[in-house]
Amino acid sequence: MPSSSNTSNRRSILKGALAVAAAPAVIGQALAQEKVTWKVQAHWPKASGSFNDSLAVLAKQLAARTDGRFNLELFGAGEIAKDREIYNVVRRGVVPMGTISPAYILGEAQAMGLLYGVPGTLRETWEMMHLTKNLGIEKMVNEELRPKGVVIFAEKAYPTEVVLKRKIGSAADLGSLKIRSAGSMLEYLAAAGASPQQIAGPEIYQAISTGVVDGAHWGAAVGALSMKFWEVAPFHMKPALGFTNDAYIINTAALDKLPADLRIQLLSLIEERYFLRSVEYLHQEAVALSTGKTKMNVEVVRFSDDVLGRFTAASKTILQKETAKGAIATKGGEALTKLMSDLGYG
Amino acid sequence: MPSSSNTSNRRSILKGALAVAAAPAVIGQALAQEKVTWKVQAHWPKASGSFNDSLAVLAKQLAARTDGRFNLELFGAGEIAKDREIYNVVRRGVVPMGTISPAYILGEAQAMGLLYGVPGTLRETWEMMHLTKNLGIEKMVNEELRPKGVVIFAEKAYPTEVVLKRKIGSAADLGSLKIRSAGSMLEYLAAAGASPQQIAGPEIYQAISTGVVDGAHWGAAVGALSMKFWEVAPFHMKPALGFTNDAYIINTAALDKLPADLRIQLLSLIEERYFLRSVEYLHQEAVALSTGKTKMNVEVVRFSDDVLGRFTAASKTILQKETAKGAIATKGGEALTKLMSDLGYG
Repeated sequence: MPSSSNTSNRRSILKGALAVAAAPAVIGQALAQEKVTWKVQAHWPKASGSFNDSLAVLAKQLAARTDGRFNLELFGAGEIAKDREIYNVVRRGVVPMGTISPAYILGEAQAMGLLYGVPGTLRETWEMMHLTKNLGIEKMVNEELRPKGVVIFAEKAYPTEVVLKRKIGSAADLGSLKIRSAGSMLEYLAAAGASPQQIAGPEIYQAISTGVVDGAHWGAAVGALSMKFWEVAPFHMKPALGFTNDAYIINTAALDKLPADLRIQLLSLIEERYFLRSVEYLHQEAVALSTGKTKMNVEVVRFSDDVLGRFTAASKTILQKETAKGAIATKGGEALTKLMSDLGYG
Repeated sequence: MPSSSNTSNRRSILKGALAVAAAPAVIGQALAQEKVTWKVQAHWPKASGSFNDSLAVLAKQLAARTDGRFNLELFGAGEIAKDREIYNVVRRGVVPMGTISPAYILGEAQAMGLLYGVPGTLRETWEMMHLTKNLGIEKMVNEELRPKGVVIFAEKAYPTEVVLKRKIGSAADLGSLKIRSAGSMLEYLAAAGASPQQIAGPEIYQAISTGVVDGAHWGAAVGALSMKFWEVAPFHMKPALGFTNDAYIINTAALDKLPADLRIQLLSLIEERYFLRSVEYLHQEAVALSTGKTKMNVEVVRFSDDVLGRFTAASKTILQKETAKGAIATKGGEALTKLMSDLGYG
């Protein structure tokens, strides 16, 4: 837990991401025309859509808005650190910034599972954006992260959807399904009666085509298209299993050391890009699914009602577990539950 | 058309709202700790939800992020100017900033009708956010506005939905319907065969209850609830007629005169708030509709297929008219048409 000396820092973050940049005494630094270059370790491979459309766009716009004074040097997955290691290299200041899935660091904050997304709770991307930014989930997570020396900002919200080799008609069929999954989605599929398995990204295609698994998820349509899953698993299942946030993670000491104007530009750009990128991604999803349907014989199939019933029950169990993690998680869970109730979701 | 001396200014705006703030020479001004107060003339009455949830929140957060250095003094509808007059008082610099509906100033830029929203084209709020911000409509409008001395920024995207006194079963019933409407929605309803009428906000309730009209729209559920329409018109029609942007309008000379740090804070806050407020509004819509259904016997009714067919035809006519306004409008129309095609909308 934070000591009292951290309280004012924490309040700044809570006031809004940009509030930290307001201290007028630091503005003078900008006169020095200091140039800053930050190494950024991504959890995406350099070839992935998000490396380019999320991170490279951020870097380009940041350089443009600061007249070339603030540059991000981008590293693809594993170049300095990979997956679960990224949190530690950023926290220790080895690199000042990274991209991450909240799923990698679920133990670091009570509300992290809510920031990652609880399967089966929300039904639209906008709801995840609203929960994350307006209803306080991101702030709750930073309440606990900041004293550890990092802050996290959601990068985009996006859906997770399963593709399958064969159609399933009922919950009974679900029982025989081996599905490549990860994190709480794995738990969700298991609780609903399927047999989820962990398989690393590069091996999924092979695993589906040889029958090791009957399906997989990697994002939704954009993932299925880029990973070529549809070639071997042409049934695209709706609705989404859930909605997830990718995130940026930043070392707070590095952030505090920035000239104030560069700090504002970085934080406001991240804030804007979250929304711009989330809605752009929805457009890309629609284009990818349309490509699948018209050029790859992809068929969109809806899970049957009894399967959906199992999912609903599984969702309740996971949500209960997430909100039992402590007082902050309980508050986050209440925000999510109230939103669901307001939206008429049972 | 802009003279060549305007080109660089225009490019700055086109590079992104915040790019204008990057000029390092101006940063020094911030050291003076200059305090700024701007009068802001809203097109909303002080009692309206948007006056408080949009404008008052912007003012509060701006003051917080600038440590009280930048304050907005808010004026409710008509206090200095109303509706269509707001554009002129802002352009002349009588007040540096206002809120406005793009519908008031359709003649000021070719793409203004697209920023306001073409009825019957899009189906979800996120699509309007994406079109406005990622696909360039807001930038296209500012290409023409900036040389006139103002810039416009979308404030929120939100749906327009009709409420009716009585259910209608077919397109034939539509013909006998008098519906209070405005702007291109009026044109849309007329083209679809209804009899739309212009009635001022404060008189709509009376007009419905005495039978002068059979229905009306004022936003969607939030509007119907706050204006008490459901008491006299309990049939809430879906889908939405269209999606609309409210907007902020700012005098460019006033914007250019701001200390650089205050300018960044204002523009980045407006940019963030567009998305935060749009998704918050969707939540408020769901709560309002639920209140209507559970406490006011509101029934949600879907327009019949033949009515929807008429709407589709009317939409095409209006879109054609909008995109025929010139080269910029054509480009904007192409962005909208491609988005619709990507989304599989006929």
